[in-house]
Amino acid sequence: MTYEIFFKRHLALIEKKLKTILKAHEAAPRSIHKAMQYAVFTGGKRFRPVLVLSACEACGGQFQKAILPALSVELIHTYSLVHDDLPALDNDDMRRGKPTCHKQFGEANAILTGDALLTFAFELLARVTPADKAIKLLAEISTASGTHGMIGGQVADLSDAAGKKTLTGHDFISRQKTGQLIRVSALAGAISSGASSHQLKKIEQYGECLGLAFQVVDDILDKDGYCKVMSLGGATRKAMELIDQAKDAVGILGAKAKGLNFLADFLMKRIPKK
Amino acid sequence: MTYEIFFKRHLALIEKKLKTILKAHEAAPRSIHKAMQYAVFTGGKRFRPVLVLSACEACGGQFQKAILPALSVELIHTYSLVHDDLPALDNDDMRRGKPTCHKQFGEANAILTGDALLTFAFELLARVTPADKAIKLLAEISTASGTHGMIGGQVADLSDAAGKKTLTGHDFISRQKTGQLIRVSALAGAISSGASSHQLKKIEQYGECLGLAFQVVDDILDKDGYCKVMSLGGATRKAMELIDQAKDAVGILGAKAKGLNFLADFLMKRIPKK
Repeated sequence: MTYEIFFKRHLALIEKKLKTILKAHEAAPRSIHKAMQYAVFTGGKRFRPVLVLSACEACGGQFQKAILPALSVELIHTYSLVHDDLPALDNDDMRRGKPTCHKQFGEANAILTGDALLTFAFELLARVTPADKAIKLLAEISTASGTHGMIGGQVADLSDAAGKKTLTGHDFISRQKTGQLIRVSALAGAISSGASSHQLKKIEQYGECLGLAFQVVDDILDKDGYCKVMSLGGATRKAMELIDQAKDAVGILGAKAKGLNFLADFLMKRIPKK
Repeated sequence: MTYEIFFKRHLALIEKKLKTILKAHEAAPRSIHKAMQYAVFTGGKRFRPVLVLSACEACGGQFQKAILPALSVELIHTYSLVHDDLPALDNDDMRRGKPTCHKQFGEANAILTGDALLTFAFELLARVTPADKAIKLLAEISTASGTHGMIGGQVADLSDAAGKKTLTGHDFISRQKTGQLIRVSALAGAISSGASSHQLKKIEQYGECLGLAFQVVDDILDKDGYCKVMSLGGATRKAMELIDQAKDAVGILGAKAKGLNFLADFLMKRIPKK
Protein backbone atom coordinates (compact mmCIF):
# COMPACT_ATOMS: atom_id res chain seq x y z
CA MET A 1 0.00 0.00 0.00
CA THR A 2 1.30 3.46 -0.83
CA TYR A 3 1.98 6.17 1.75
CA GLU A 4 -0.75 8.31 0.20
CA ILE A 5 -3.37 5.57 0.47
CA PHE A 6 -2.37 4.37 3.92
CA PHE A 7 -2.48 7.89 5.34
CA LYS A 8 -5.36 9.15 3.21
CA ARG A 9 -7.47 10.37 6.13
CA HIS A 10 -4.49 11.89 7.95
CA LEU A 11 -3.29 13.70 4.84
CA ALA A 12 -6.77 14.96 3.99
CA LEU A 13 -7.14 16.42 7.48
CA ILE A 14 -3.69 18.01 7.40
CA GLU A 15 -4.21 19.64 3.97
CA LYS A 16 -7.67 20.86 4.86
CA LYS A 17 -6.63 22.33 8.19
CA LEU A 18 -3.47 23.93 6.79
CA LYS A 19 -5.65 25.62 4.16
CA THR A 20 -8.30 26.80 6.60
CA ILE A 21 -5.96 28.12 9.29
CA LEU A 22 -3.81 29.97 6.78
CA LYS A 23 -6.90 31.35 5.04
CA ALA A 24 -8.42 32.44 8.35
CA HIS A 25 -5.12 34.10 9.24
CA GLU A 26 -5.12 36.35 6.16
CA ALA A 27 -5.04 40.09 6.81
CA ALA A 28 -3.40 43.20 5.44
CA PRO A 29 -0.73 43.15 4.12
CA ARG A 30 -1.85 40.26 1.89
CA SER A 31 1.55 39.61 0.32
CA ILE A 32 3.09 37.94 3.37
CA HIS A 33 0.13 35.60 3.72
CA LYS A 34 0.38 34.67 0.05
CA ALA A 35 4.06 33.91 0.53
CA MET A 36 3.34 31.78 3.61
CA GLN A 37 0.78 29.78 1.64
CA TYR A 38 3.17 29.43 -1.30
CA ALA A 39 5.83 27.99 1.00
CA VAL A 40 3.46 25.62 2.79
CA PHE A 41 1.83 24.16 -0.34
CA THR A 42 4.71 22.79 -2.37
CA GLY A 43 3.70 19.16 -2.54
CA GLY A 44 5.66 17.87 0.45
CA LYS A 45 4.94 14.45 1.95
CA ARG A 46 3.81 15.94 5.30
CA PHE A 47 5.98 13.33 7.00
CA ARG A 48 6.19 15.20 10.30
CA PRO A 49 2.48 16.02 10.80
CA VAL A 50 1.55 12.49 9.69
CA LEU A 51 3.96 11.27 12.36
CA VAL A 52 2.32 13.50 14.99
CA LEU A 53 -1.12 12.09 14.17
CA SER A 54 0.16 8.49 14.03
CA ALA A 55 1.91 8.78 17.39
CA CYS A 56 -1.31 10.10 18.91
CA GLU A 57 -3.15 7.02 17.58
CA ALA A 58 -0.39 4.71 18.78
CA CYS A 59 -1.06 5.90 22.34
CA GLY A 60 -4.78 5.34 22.03
CA GLY A 61 -5.93 8.82 21.01
CA GLN A 62 -7.96 9.79 17.97
CA PHE A 63 -5.62 11.31 15.41
CA GLN A 64 -7.80 14.41 15.09
CA LYS A 65 -6.84 15.36 18.66
CA ALA A 66 -3.28 16.06 17.60
CA ILE A 67 -4.01 18.30 14.65
CA LEU A 68 -2.76 21.59 16.15
CA PRO A 69 0.74 20.35 17.05
CA ALA A 70 0.81 18.53 13.69
CA LEU A 71 0.23 21.82 11.87
CA SER A 72 2.70 23.57 14.14
CA VAL A 73 5.60 21.22 13.35
CA GLU A 74 4.81 21.41 9.64
CA LEU A 75 4.97 25.22 9.78
CA ILE A 76 8.29 25.00 11.62
CA HIS A 77 9.63 22.55 9.05
CA THR A 78 8.48 24.90 6.28
CA TYR A 79 10.08 27.98 7.84
CA SER A 80 13.36 26.07 8.17
CA LEU A 81 13.28 25.24 4.45
CA VAL A 82 12.50 28.85 3.49
CA HIS A 83 15.44 30.14 5.53
CA ASP A 84 17.78 27.27 4.50
CA ASP A 85 17.14 28.06 0.84
CA LEU A 86 18.23 31.71 1.22
CA PRO A 87 21.28 32.93 -0.72
CA ALA A 88 23.30 33.32 2.50
CA LEU A 89 22.62 29.69 3.41
CA ASP A 90 22.11 26.95 0.78
CA ASN A 91 21.30 29.40 -2.03
CA ASP A 92 18.76 27.13 -3.70
CA ASP A 93 16.69 28.47 -6.60
CA MET A 94 14.27 25.59 -6.83
CA ARG A 95 12.44 23.33 -4.36
CA ARG A 96 10.28 20.45 -5.54
CA GLY A 97 10.18 21.89 -9.06
CA LYS A 98 9.05 25.37 -8.02
CA PRO A 99 11.05 28.56 -7.45
CA THR A 100 12.08 28.86 -3.81
CA CYS A 101 10.36 31.48 -1.66
CA HIS A 102 13.06 34.14 -2.14
CA LYS A 103 13.14 33.52 -5.89
CA GLN A 104 9.39 34.06 -6.03
CA PHE A 105 8.95 36.90 -3.51
CA GLY A 106 12.42 38.37 -3.01
CA GLU A 107 14.89 37.84 -0.23
CA ALA A 108 13.46 40.31 2.29
CA ASN A 109 10.01 38.76 2.00
CA ALA A 110 11.42 35.24 2.30
CA ILE A 111 13.21 36.13 5.54
CA LEU A 112 9.99 37.63 6.92
CA THR A 113 7.91 34.71 5.62
CA GLY A 114 10.10 32.28 7.56
CA ASP A 115 9.77 34.47 10.65
CA ALA A 116 6.01 34.59 10.18
CA LEU A 117 5.67 30.81 9.80
CA LEU A 118 7.71 30.24 12.95
CA THR A 119 5.67 32.78 14.90
CA PHE A 120 2.38 31.36 13.66
CA ALA A 121 3.50 27.83 14.59
CA PHE A 122 3.69 28.95 18.23
CA GLU A 123 0.47 30.94 17.97
CA LEU A 124 -1.29 27.69 16.99
CA LEU A 125 -0.02 25.94 20.11
CA ALA A 126 -1.75 28.59 22.22
CA ARG A 127 -5.04 27.20 20.87
CA VAL A 128 -4.44 23.72 22.34
CA THR A 129 -6.57 22.82 25.35
CA PRO A 130 -6.17 22.17 28.20
CA ALA A 131 -3.50 24.76 28.94
CA ASP A 132 -1.09 22.38 30.65
CA LYS A 133 -0.99 20.22 27.51
CA ALA A 134 -0.38 23.32 25.39
CA ILE A 135 2.54 24.32 27.62
CA LYS A 136 4.12 20.86 27.45
CA LEU A 137 3.90 20.99 23.66
CA LEU A 138 5.33 24.51 23.61
CA ALA A 139 8.26 23.53 25.83
CA GLU A 140 9.11 20.42 23.80
CA ILE A 141 8.60 21.89 20.34
CA SER A 142 10.44 25.15 21.02
CA THR A 143 13.43 23.32 22.52
CA ALA A 144 13.60 20.85 19.63
CA SER A 145 13.44 23.71 17.09
CA GLY A 146 15.97 25.97 18.76
CA THR A 147 19.70 26.00 19.37
CA HIS A 148 19.51 22.72 21.29
CA GLY A 149 17.86 21.15 18.27
CA MET A 150 17.22 22.11 14.68
CA ILE A 151 18.91 25.53 14.64
CA GLY A 152 21.91 24.15 16.53
CA GLY A 153 22.29 21.42 13.91
CA GLN A 154 22.04 23.92 11.11
CA VAL A 155 24.75 26.10 12.68
CA ALA A 156 27.04 23.10 13.22
CA ASP A 157 26.41 21.99 9.64
CA LEU A 158 27.44 25.45 8.39
CA SER A 159 30.40 26.01 10.66
CA ASP A 160 31.94 22.72 11.76
CA ALA A 161 33.81 21.64 8.62
CA ALA A 162 36.23 19.48 10.61
CA GLY A 163 33.51 17.81 12.68
CA LYS A 164 31.57 16.93 9.55
CA LYS A 165 34.38 14.65 8.43
CA THR A 166 33.86 12.40 11.46
CA LEU A 167 31.05 9.98 12.24
CA THR A 168 30.56 11.57 15.67
CA GLY A 169 30.27 15.00 14.09
CA HIS A 170 27.81 13.74 11.52
CA ASP A 171 25.71 12.04 14.15
CA PHE A 172 25.54 15.26 16.16
CA ILE A 173 24.56 17.39 13.20
CA SER A 174 21.99 14.88 11.94
CA ARG A 175 20.39 14.29 15.32
CA GLN A 176 20.04 18.04 15.83
CA LYS A 177 19.24 19.34 12.38
CA THR A 178 16.83 16.61 11.27
CA GLY A 179 16.36 14.24 14.17
CA GLN A 180 15.05 16.57 16.83
CA LEU A 181 12.03 17.86 14.92
CA ILE A 182 11.08 14.28 13.99
CA ARG A 183 11.60 13.12 17.58
CA VAL A 184 9.42 15.93 18.89
CA SER A 185 6.75 15.24 16.26
CA ALA A 186 6.34 11.75 17.65
CA LEU A 187 6.43 13.07 21.20
CA ALA A 188 3.88 15.80 20.44
CA GLY A 189 1.43 13.20 19.17
CA ALA A 190 1.88 11.17 22.32
CA ILE A 191 1.44 14.24 24.55
CA SER A 192 -1.75 15.12 22.64
CA SER A 193 -3.21 11.69 23.31
CA GLY A 194 -2.58 12.01 27.04
CA ALA A 195 -0.06 9.15 26.93
CA SER A 196 1.32 7.47 30.06
CA SER A 197 4.96 8.14 30.96
CA HIS A 198 5.83 4.64 29.73
CA GLN A 199 4.18 5.32 26.36
CA LEU A 200 5.90 8.72 26.13
CA LYS A 201 9.27 7.05 26.69
CA LYS A 202 8.68 4.45 24.00
CA ILE A 203 7.38 6.98 21.51
CA GLU A 204 10.35 9.23 22.15
CA GLN A 205 12.76 6.31 21.57
CA TYR A 206 10.95 5.58 18.33
CA GLY A 207 11.14 9.23 17.25
CA GLU A 208 14.82 9.50 18.08
CA CYS A 209 15.73 6.42 16.01
CA LEU A 210 13.41 7.35 13.17
CA GLY A 211 14.71 10.92 13.08
CA LEU A 212 18.33 9.88 12.70
CA ALA A 213 17.38 7.14 10.22
CA PHE A 214 15.58 9.76 8.14
CA GLN A 215 18.82 11.70 7.67
CA VAL A 216 20.91 8.59 7.00
CA VAL A 217 18.47 7.49 4.28
CA ASP A 218 18.49 10.99 2.79
CA ASP A 219 22.28 10.90 2.69
CA ILE A 220 22.26 7.47 1.04
CA LEU A 221 19.92 8.76 -1.66
CA ASP A 222 21.99 11.93 -2.14
CA LYS A 223 25.30 9.98 -1.92
CA ASP A 224 26.34 12.61 0.60
CA GLY A 225 26.91 13.02 4.34
CA TYR A 226 26.99 9.58 5.91
CA CYS A 227 28.25 8.05 2.66
CA LYS A 228 31.37 10.16 3.08
CA VAL A 229 32.14 9.32 6.71
CA MET A 230 31.35 5.61 6.36
CA SER A 231 30.91 3.21 3.45
CA LEU A 232 27.62 3.03 1.57
CA GLY A 233 27.19 -0.44 3.06
CA GLY A 234 27.87 0.95 6.52
CA ALA A 235 25.35 3.75 6.08
CA THR A 236 22.78 1.26 4.79
CA ARG A 237 23.29 -1.00 7.81
CA LYS A 238 23.09 2.00 10.14
CA ALA A 239 19.78 3.11 8.61
CA MET A 240 18.33 -0.40 8.81
CA GLU A 241 19.38 -0.85 12.41
CA LEU A 242 17.87 2.48 13.43
CA ILE A 243 14.61 1.66 11.69
CA ASP A 244 14.50 -1.72 13.42
CA GLN A 245 15.17 -0.05 16.76
CA ALA A 246 12.35 2.41 16.08
CA LYS A 247 9.90 -0.42 15.40
CA ASP A 248 11.10 -2.38 18.41
CA ALA A 249 10.48 0.61 20.69
CA VAL A 250 6.79 0.75 19.81
CA GLY A 251 6.22 -3.01 19.46
CA ILE A 252 4.71 -2.98 22.92
CA LEU A 253 1.94 -0.62 21.75
CA GLY A 254 0.52 -3.34 19.48
CA ALA A 255 -1.81 -2.77 16.54
CA LYS A 256 -2.42 0.87 17.49
CA ALA A 257 1.13 1.59 16.34
CA LYS A 258 0.42 0.54 12.77
CA GLY A 259 0.91 4.08 11.46
CA LEU A 260 4.28 4.32 13.17
CA ASN A 261 5.28 0.96 11.74
CA PHE A 262 4.18 2.04 8.29
CA LEU A 263 6.34 5.18 8.53
CA ALA A 264 9.33 3.09 9.59
CA ASP A 265 8.76 0.63 6.72
CA PHE A 266 8.29 3.55 4.35
CA LEU A 267 11.76 4.82 5.25
CA MET A 268 13.17 1.30 4.91
CA LYS A 269 11.76 1.01 1.37
CA ARG A 270 13.50 4.23 0.35
CA ILE A 271 16.88 2.60 0.89
CA PRO A 272 18.15 1.50 -2.54
CA LYS A 273 18.64 -2.25 -3.01
CA LYS A 274 22.24 -3.19 -3.71
CA MET B 1 15.20 61.81 37.71
CA THR B 2 16.81 59.87 34.88
CA TYR B 3 15.34 56.74 33.31
CA GLU B 4 18.31 54.71 34.57
CA ILE B 5 17.85 55.84 38.15
CA PHE B 6 14.08 55.61 38.21
CA PHE B 7 14.13 52.05 36.84
CA LYS B 8 17.33 50.98 38.58
CA ARG B 9 15.84 47.86 40.19
CA HIS B 10 13.89 46.89 37.07
CA LEU B 11 16.94 47.30 34.84
CA ALA B 12 19.19 45.40 37.23
CA LEU B 13 16.77 42.47 37.26
CA ILE B 14 16.37 42.48 33.48
CA GLU B 15 20.14 42.55 32.81
CA LYS B 16 20.85 39.89 35.41
CA LYS B 17 18.15 37.55 34.17
CA LEU B 18 19.01 38.05 30.50
CA LYS B 19 22.60 37.09 31.36
CA THR B 20 21.68 34.05 33.41
CA ILE B 21 19.08 32.60 31.05
CA LEU B 22 21.33 33.05 28.01
CA LYS B 23 24.30 31.59 29.91
CA ALA B 24 22.25 28.63 31.11
CA HIS B 25 21.06 28.08 27.55
CA GLU B 26 24.61 27.69 26.17
CA ALA B 27 25.36 24.39 24.46
CA ALA B 28 27.23 23.11 21.43
CA PRO B 29 27.57 24.73 18.96
CA ARG B 30 28.79 27.68 21.02
CA SER B 31 28.94 30.17 18.15
CA ILE B 32 25.18 30.68 17.89
CA HIS B 33 24.91 31.32 21.63
CA LYS B 34 27.72 33.87 21.44
CA ALA B 35 25.91 35.60 18.58
CA MET B 36 22.65 35.64 20.54
CA GLN B 37 24.43 37.24 23.50
CA TYR B 38 26.17 39.75 21.24
CA ALA B 39 22.82 40.81 19.80
CA VAL B 40 21.08 41.05 23.18
CA PHE B 41 23.79 43.08 24.94
CA THR B 42 24.20 46.17 22.81
CA GLY B 43 23.33 48.81 25.37
CA GLY B 44 19.65 49.22 24.54
CA LYS B 45 17.28 51.02 26.91
CA ARG B 46 15.22 47.86 27.59
CA PHE B 47 12.12 49.98 27.07
CA ARG B 48 9.83 47.01 26.38
CA PRO B 49 10.81 44.78 29.33
CA VAL B 50 10.75 47.81 31.67
CA LEU B 51 7.25 48.45 30.38
CA VAL B 52 6.24 44.83 31.09
CA LEU B 53 7.47 45.10 34.69
CA SER B 54 5.90 48.53 35.19
CA ALA B 55 2.53 47.39 33.90
CA CYS B 56 2.63 44.45 36.28
CA GLU B 57 3.24 46.88 39.18
CA ALA B 58 0.51 49.20 37.94
CA CYS B 59 -2.00 46.37 38.37
CA GLY B 60 -0.80 45.60 41.88
CA GLY B 61 1.72 42.81 41.17
CA GLN B 62 5.35 42.72 42.19
CA PHE B 63 7.43 43.52 39.13
CA GLN B 64 9.52 40.36 39.58
CA LYS B 65 6.44 38.28 38.71
CA ALA B 66 6.54 39.51 35.13
CA ILE B 67 10.19 38.79 34.42
CA LEU B 68 9.70 35.89 31.97
CA PRO B 69 7.41 37.76 29.56
CA ALA B 70 9.67 40.80 29.97
CA LEU B 71 12.66 38.77 28.77
CA SER B 72 10.56 37.21 26.04
CA VAL B 73 9.52 40.53 24.48
CA GLU B 74 13.10 41.80 24.68
CA LEU B 75 14.32 38.71 22.79
CA ILE B 76 11.61 39.26 20.18
CA HIS B 77 12.58 42.91 19.84
CA THR B 78 16.23 41.86 19.48
CA TYR B 79 15.49 39.23 16.82
CA SER B 80 13.52 41.82 14.86
CA LEU B 81 16.53 44.18 14.90
CA VAL B 82 18.93 41.42 13.81
CA HIS B 83 16.72 40.51 10.85
CA ASP B 84 15.89 44.15 10.00
CA ASP B 85 19.59 44.97 9.80
CA LEU B 86 20.27 42.24 7.19
CA PRO B 87 21.50 43.26 3.73
CA ALA B 88 18.20 42.20 2.12
CA LEU B 89 16.27 44.47 4.49
CA ASP B 90 17.74 47.70 5.92
CA ASN B 91 21.36 46.73 5.20
CA ASP B 92 22.76 48.40 8.30
CA ASP B 93 26.41 47.89 9.18
CA MET B 94 26.30 49.45 12.63
CA ARG B 95 23.85 49.48 15.54
CA ARG B 96 24.48 51.56 18.64
CA GLY B 97 28.13 51.98 17.67
CA LYS B 98 28.86 48.28 17.19
CA PRO B 99 28.91 46.16 14.02
CA THR B 100 25.50 44.61 13.38
CA CYS B 101 25.09 40.88 13.92
CA HIS B 102 25.64 39.93 10.26
CA LYS B 103 28.71 42.18 10.06
CA GLN B 104 30.15 40.45 13.11
CA PHE B 105 29.10 36.83 12.47
CA GLY B 106 28.16 36.68 8.79
CA GLU B 107 24.77 36.73 7.16
CA ALA B 108 23.89 33.05 7.56
CA ASN B 109 24.60 33.18 11.29
CA ALA B 110 22.64 36.40 11.68
CA ILE B 111 19.57 34.84 10.05
CA LEU B 112 19.87 31.82 12.35
CA THR B 113 20.57 34.03 15.39
CA GLY B 114 17.33 35.89 14.78
CA ASP B 115 15.49 32.58 14.41
CA ALA B 116 17.07 31.32 17.62
CA LEU B 117 16.14 34.43 19.62
CA LEU B 118 12.54 34.19 18.43
CA THR B 119 12.34 30.49 19.26
CA PHE B 120 13.92 31.02 22.68
CA ALA B 121 11.47 33.84 23.41
CA PHE B 122 8.61 31.34 23.13
CA GLU B 123 10.54 28.67 25.03
CA LEU B 124 10.74 31.11 27.96
CA LEU B 125 6.97 31.56 27.99
CA ALA B 126 6.59 27.80 28.53
CA ARG B 127 8.27 28.36 31.93
CA VAL B 128 5.53 30.71 33.15
CA THR B 129 3.18 29.29 35.77
CA PRO B 130 0.33 28.63 36.02
CA ALA B 131 -0.18 27.16 32.56
CA ASP B 132 -3.29 29.19 31.72
CA LYS B 133 -1.35 32.41 32.30
CA ALA B 134 1.47 31.11 30.09
CA ILE B 135 -0.99 30.34 27.31
CA LYS B 136 -2.60 33.78 27.50
CA LEU B 137 0.86 35.36 27.20
CA LEU B 138 1.76 33.05 24.33
CA ALA B 139 -1.43 33.90 22.43
CA GLU B 140 -1.03 37.66 22.90
CA ILE B 141 2.72 37.88 22.29
CA SER B 142 2.74 35.59 19.23
CA THR B 143 -0.14 37.47 17.62
CA ALA B 144 1.46 40.86 18.28
CA SER B 145 4.78 39.66 16.83
CA GLY B 146 3.38 37.98 13.74
CA THR B 147 1.73 39.04 10.51
CA HIS B 148 -1.10 40.77 12.41
CA GLY B 149 1.49 42.80 14.25
CA MET B 150 5.20 43.44 13.97
CA ILE B 151 5.96 41.31 10.91
CA GLY B 152 2.90 42.65 9.11
CA GLY B 153 4.09 46.20 9.75
CA GLN B 154 7.55 45.38 8.52
CA VAL B 155 6.15 43.89 5.29
CA ALA B 156 3.90 46.92 4.73
CA ASP B 157 6.84 49.23 5.39
CA LEU B 158 8.89 47.38 2.73
CA SER B 159 6.20 46.98 0.13
CA ASP B 160 3.60 49.69 0.39
CA ALA B 161 5.42 52.68 -1.09
CA ALA B 162 2.13 54.40 -2.00
CA GLY B 163 0.52 53.81 1.38
CA LYS B 164 3.55 55.26 3.16
CA LYS B 165 2.85 58.64 1.61
CA THR B 166 -0.50 58.89 3.43
CA LEU B 167 -1.23 59.45 7.09
CA THR B 168 -3.51 56.39 7.16
CA GLY B 169 -0.78 54.23 5.67
CA HIS B 170 1.74 55.54 8.15
CA ASP B 171 -0.56 54.95 11.06
CA PHE B 172 -1.12 51.35 9.95
CA ILE B 173 2.58 50.62 9.52
CA SER B 174 3.55 52.29 12.80
CA ARG B 175 0.83 50.64 14.84
CA GLN B 176 1.84 47.24 13.49
CA LYS B 177 5.61 47.48 13.24
CA THR B 178 6.30 49.32 16.48
CA GLY B 179 3.02 49.74 18.30
CA GLN B 180 1.92 46.13 18.65
CA LEU B 181 4.98 44.88 20.53
CA ILE B 182 4.77 47.85 22.90
CA ARG B 183 1.02 47.35 23.37
CA VAL B 184 1.56 43.66 24.14
CA SER B 185 4.43 44.46 26.52
CA ALA B 186 2.05 46.49 28.65
CA LEU B 187 -0.64 43.82 28.36
CA ALA B 188 1.80 41.03 29.26
CA GLY B 189 2.73 42.82 32.47
CA ALA B 190 -0.94 43.18 33.35
CA ILE B 191 -1.65 39.51 32.58
CA SER B 192 1.30 38.50 34.76
CA SER B 193 -0.09 40.44 37.70
CA GLY B 194 -3.46 38.71 37.42
CA ALA B 195 -5.15 41.98 36.48
CA SER B 196 -8.92 42.39 36.37
CA SER B 197 -10.57 42.77 32.97
CA HIS B 198 -11.03 46.48 33.67
CA GLN B 199 -7.33 46.89 34.47
CA LEU B 200 -6.40 44.86 31.35
CA LYS B 201 -8.49 47.19 29.21
CA LYS B 202 -6.92 50.33 30.64
CA ILE B 203 -3.40 48.94 30.34
CA GLU B 204 -4.04 47.91 26.75
CA GLN B 205 -5.31 51.42 25.92
CA TYR B 206 -2.19 52.85 27.51
CA GLY B 207 0.04 50.45 25.54
CA GLU B 208 -1.69 51.21 22.27
CA CYS B 209 -1.27 54.98 22.66
CA LEU B 210 2.27 54.68 23.96
CA GLY B 211 3.28 52.32 21.16
CA LEU B 212 2.14 54.66 18.41
CA ALA B 213 3.60 57.66 20.24
CA PHE B 214 6.93 55.85 20.39
CA GLN B 215 7.08 55.69 16.60
CA VAL B 216 5.90 59.27 16.12
CA VAL B 217 8.62 60.53 18.47
CA ASP B 218 11.22 58.39 16.67
CA ASP B 219 10.14 59.89 13.37
CA ILE B 220 10.33 63.43 14.79
CA LEU B 221 13.90 62.77 15.97
CA ASP B 222 14.86 61.18 12.62
CA LYS B 223 12.96 63.86 10.64
CA ASP B 224 11.38 60.94 8.78
CA GLY B 225 8.08 59.09 8.50
CA TYR B 226 5.40 61.19 10.19
CA CYS B 227 7.34 64.38 9.43
CA LYS B 228 6.79 63.63 5.75
CA VAL B 229 3.05 62.93 5.85
CA MET B 230 2.26 65.78 8.22
CA SER B 231 4.07 68.92 9.39
CA LEU B 232 6.64 68.73 12.17
CA GLY B 233 4.19 70.66 14.31
CA GLY B 234 1.43 68.21 13.44
CA ALA B 235 3.61 65.24 14.32
CA THR B 236 4.60 66.89 17.60
CA ARG B 237 0.97 67.52 18.51
CA LYS B 238 0.08 63.95 17.57
CA ALA B 239 2.81 62.55 19.80
CA MET B 240 1.80 64.78 22.72
CA GLU B 241 -1.87 63.85 22.37
CA LEU B 242 -1.08 60.14 22.28
CA ILE B 243 1.13 60.42 25.36
CA ASP B 244 -1.60 62.33 27.19
CA GLN B 245 -4.13 59.66 26.21
CA ALA B 246 -1.80 56.96 27.48
CA LYS B 247 -1.48 58.67 30.85
CA ASP B 248 -5.22 59.31 31.03
CA ALA B 249 -5.93 55.62 30.46
CA VAL B 250 -3.99 54.56 33.55
CA GLY B 251 -4.89 57.55 35.73
CA ILE B 252 -7.49 55.38 37.43
CA LEU B 253 -4.76 53.00 38.67
CA GLY B 254 -3.32 55.72 40.90
CA ALA B 255 0.17 55.75 42.39
CA LYS B 256 0.85 52.16 41.36
CA ALA B 257 1.06 53.40 37.77
CA LYS B 258 4.04 55.64 38.50
CA GLY B 259 6.34 53.54 36.28
CA LEU B 260 3.90 53.80 33.39
CA ASN B 261 3.63 57.55 33.91
CA PHE B 262 7.39 57.86 34.00
CA LEU B 263 7.68 56.00 30.69
CA ALA B 264 5.08 58.29 29.13
CA ASP B 265 6.88 61.40 30.45
CA PHE B 266 10.18 59.95 29.25
CA LEU B 267 8.80 59.79 25.70
CA MET B 268 7.40 63.31 26.05
CA LYS B 269 10.83 64.65 27.05
CA ARG B 270 12.39 63.17 23.93
CA ILE B 271 10.30 65.47 21.75
CA PRO B 272 12.53 68.43 20.77
CA LYS B 273 11.41 71.84 21.99
CA LYS B 274 10.63 74.25 19.19
